[in-house]
Amino acid sequence: MEWREINLLKKFSDEKFQKINLFESERMFCDIYCFKPGQEQKIHKHEGSDKIYYILEGQGRFKVGSEEKEFQAGTSIWIPPGVEHGVKNSGSDPLVTLVFMAPKPLH
Amino acid sequence: MEWREINLLKKFSDEKFQKINLFESERMFCDIYCFKPGQEQKIHKHEGSDKIYYILEGQGRFKVGSEEKEFQAGTSIWIPPGVEHGVKNSGSDPLVTLVFMAPKPLH
Repeated sequence: MEWREINLLKKFSDEKFQKINLFESERMFCDIYCFKPGQEQKIHKHEGSDKIYYILEGQGRFKVGSEEKEFQAGTSIWIPPGVEHGVKNSGSDPLVTLVFMAPKPLH
Repeated sequence: MEWREINLLKKFSDEKFQKINLFESERMFCDIYCFKPGQEQKIHKHEGSDKIYYILEGQGRFKVGSEEKEFQAGTSIWIPPGVEHGVKNSGSDPLVTLVFMAPKPLH
């Protein structure tokens, strides 16, 4: 049986936000992203894949397409294929999100 | 922008555990499952799809293949395609899990 305990895996760097893989197959991947205050994932998009963020702790400012909105822990956000998106830790505490993508991008 | 706040969506029934869909496409679905103490999802399997549980609150006893193990909030469990699995709320509090599946099963 394969399991991961998030509190043992999360980690932060002064250099940039951290991506830690939990599980992956040809069909999907599941990561956690760990942002110190002020760190961000720049605007980008994935053709052909759905992406879901779930905020485990902290708060983040999400840009999705032309919209921008602040969310707290306990919120899940869906990014459909081809839609530009980015995230910034807009709070004073760490921001940790689960990220699920399907299918796994080819690049 | 599409988002869901889990605390506004979770619900429980005396009759059986509840599945609430958050997002879905041809490529995946994302649900929450809500179990009162003692409720369970019986052993079953999905050919061709990966499934990931993330425990949001409570504790659950997971059967995956021939293994059985107790997990707490903050743990993520991966069920590869074709592997039998089931979950029981083995605690005295509600059990709430995120569930991701990719691809979405055809049946």
